[in-house]
Amino acid sequence: MTDANRVWRLRRRPTGEIEEGDLSFETEAIPEPAEGQCLVRLNYLSVDPTNLVWMKRDSYIPAVALDDPMRGVVCGTVVESRSEQLPEGAVVSGLGTWADYQLGSPETLQVMADTSPMPVAEAFGTFAVVGPTAYVGMIDIGQPKEGETVVVSGAAGAVGSIAGQIGKIHGCRVVGLAGTPKKCSWITEDLGFDAAINYRADDIPSALDEACPDGIDVYFDNTGGEILDACLARMNVFGRVVTCGQISQYTSAEGWSGPANYGSILVNRLTVKGFIILDHMDRYPEAIGTMAAWMAEGKLKARNEIVDGLENAVDTCKRLFSGEHEGKLMVRVEEIAAG
Amino acid sequence: MTDANRVWRLRRRPTGEIEEGDLSFETEAIPEPAEGQCLVRLNYLSVDPTNLVWMKRDSYIPAVALDDPMRGVVCGTVVESRSEQLPEGAVVSGLGTWADYQLGSPETLQVMADTSPMPVAEAFGTFAVVGPTAYVGMIDIGQPKEGETVVVSGAAGAVGSIAGQIGKIHGCRVVGLAGTPKKCSWITEDLGFDAAINYRADDIPSALDEACPDGIDVYFDNTGGEILDACLARMNVFGRVVTCGQISQYTSAEGWSGPANYGSILVNRLTVKGFIILDHMDRYPEAIGTMAAWMAEGKLKARNEIVDGLENAVDTCKRLFSGEHEGKLMVRVEEIAAG
Repeated sequence: MTDANRVWRLRRRPTGEIEEGDLSFETEAIPEPAEGQCLVRLNYLSVDPTNLVWMKRDSYIPAVALDDPMRGVVCGTVVESRSEQLPEGAVVSGLGTWADYQLGSPETLQVMADTSPMPVAEAFGTFAVVGPTAYVGMIDIGQPKEGETVVVSGAAGAVGSIAGQIGKIHGCRVVGLAGTPKKCSWITEDLGFDAAINYRADDIPSALDEACPDGIDVYFDNTGGEILDACLARMNVFGRVVTCGQISQYTSAEGWSGPANYGSILVNRLTVKGFIILDHMDRYPEAIGTMAAWMAEGKLKARNEIVDGLENAVDTCKRLFSGEHEGKLMVRVEEIAAG
Repeated sequence: MTDANRVWRLRRRPTGEIEEGDLSFETEAIPEPAEGQCLVRLNYLSVDPTNLVWMKRDSYIPAVALDDPMRGVVCGTVVESRSEQLPEGAVVSGLGTWADYQLGSPETLQVMADTSPMPVAEAFGTFAVVGPTAYVGMIDIGQPKEGETVVVSGAAGAVGSIAGQIGKIHGCRVVGLAGTPKKCSWITEDLGFDAAINYRADDIPSALDEACPDGIDVYFDNTGGEILDACLARMNVFGRVVTCGQISQYTSAEGWSGPANYGSILVNRLTVKGFIILDHMDRYPEAIGTMAAWMAEGKLKARNEIVDGLENAVDTCKRLFSGEHEGKLMVRVEEIAAG
């Protein structure tokens, strides 16, 4: 069985959260690459809130078809190749599946640049999706100016924790919302946020009033829902709402609910802009280069929590919605030794 | 009593629609201009949906104070002046009050350019607020491209009827929503909209599906509410929502309700941008020049409905919310004879 291929397949669309039986863990044959393809051994699997959307419905990309392998952002090693662009031995990343072995092509995977001295897992966790998402969202859309107030929801999450630090680097007052005292301590004490609000314990509107005495200029929205509504009510004129995620709505079985304070968009002449990082691949070189420099200077910290075992992929994904982790969650299937 | 000054004063904040007793019609002394001010004889009063917001609450400008004269966009003639910039005899426009005679200053009023051969009333009705609003909203924010689909709510209203025509001038398929068969005929037969939806009679979602087989690229939102929600659900990727008004919400006594399909902003990477024309005074020269040329070429039609008598100002304003008019509503207090 050492060569057997373990594959998570989507069997049923979750209605609310992911439930037992929505995915099944199969043991299958290892596929053969056709001309132009390669066979990839999965090393690391990124789990992201958007995975739940992919299970549920068509969105910015089609839903995963029922009975297909679950889609994910992957980092792996080419073990057999019929594609010149993806040679045997190359470490690659891109869109793949939740499977030990999978076929890839240059349309979905690219060879990762040398990440040393950063371990591959750290570079993949920080730069494959979440870092560029935080960078493009905060800099291109949020356009933070020195002295402005930035609020970030999901602030202890993978994207939010980086987005808030980018706000600090731009000289803003940065306030984060997170769901536990531990997360609140992490973002203020380790990451330098000016204030943290525990959205499960605090009264969100009055906590925002206290933390943002000059109103809000940039709201980096990872959650939607009640926090979005409270922020809309406190936006300054010409404020920017960066619509990066709506995680409070992803697990809803009843359909989404809109913000009652939508009218603030008109009254305060806001710009609300949604984005998906896949549309901004041209920004990756600048984003990664700039963030790597910030990290080297100690201005930016990224935390990756690595869970071992592909068999734990579903449980790890569920933790994204229970609010029990800080930073980026990923699954290690097979470590890549330092070059 | 010929010199007496009739003034509408705000006595109570409307909760839902404007009701008897919310404003009172007083006869008062004509005020005296101080240094730097002038005395203006009101000729035309613009009534606009935003007037109701000014009565109710602080928004992009403070609410009208209780017992103060009601605020409005006015066109008048300077009858006495202690301001060099606003000389006696000048026809002026800007922010004033619902009163026969009122004080003005260069901070609130400007001398109107010669409008001939267009009558002053027509020029004021078309260019003081609604034309530039439609122009800036559609061109700067909507950014319509040839072949795209534009949807306009409040399409038989003052701004919407012009915004839709600007979409046609840019080579778009333009669909308007209006509240009566007569309005629907007007926008399709007289103004050249490609399709009209009677939002009171038709099922909005299925009517939009039929009228917009290729989805919606630009939604010019004058209404908010149910139409906004249905449009959000049909926006194409990278679509633009021009948030110009939320008239469906202005009369609500229960607070505003947000769009359930807000998540489309993320999924379809929309840009939703609110604007108030007062922020865009620098765009007036281009907007007026371009629209005047379009009107001379017969590409753009503007309809002004003029109601006589300052005593009818409140009833005329109420008509904005009952959906019984087409184009721009204004009140004539004293005609300006053609120069």
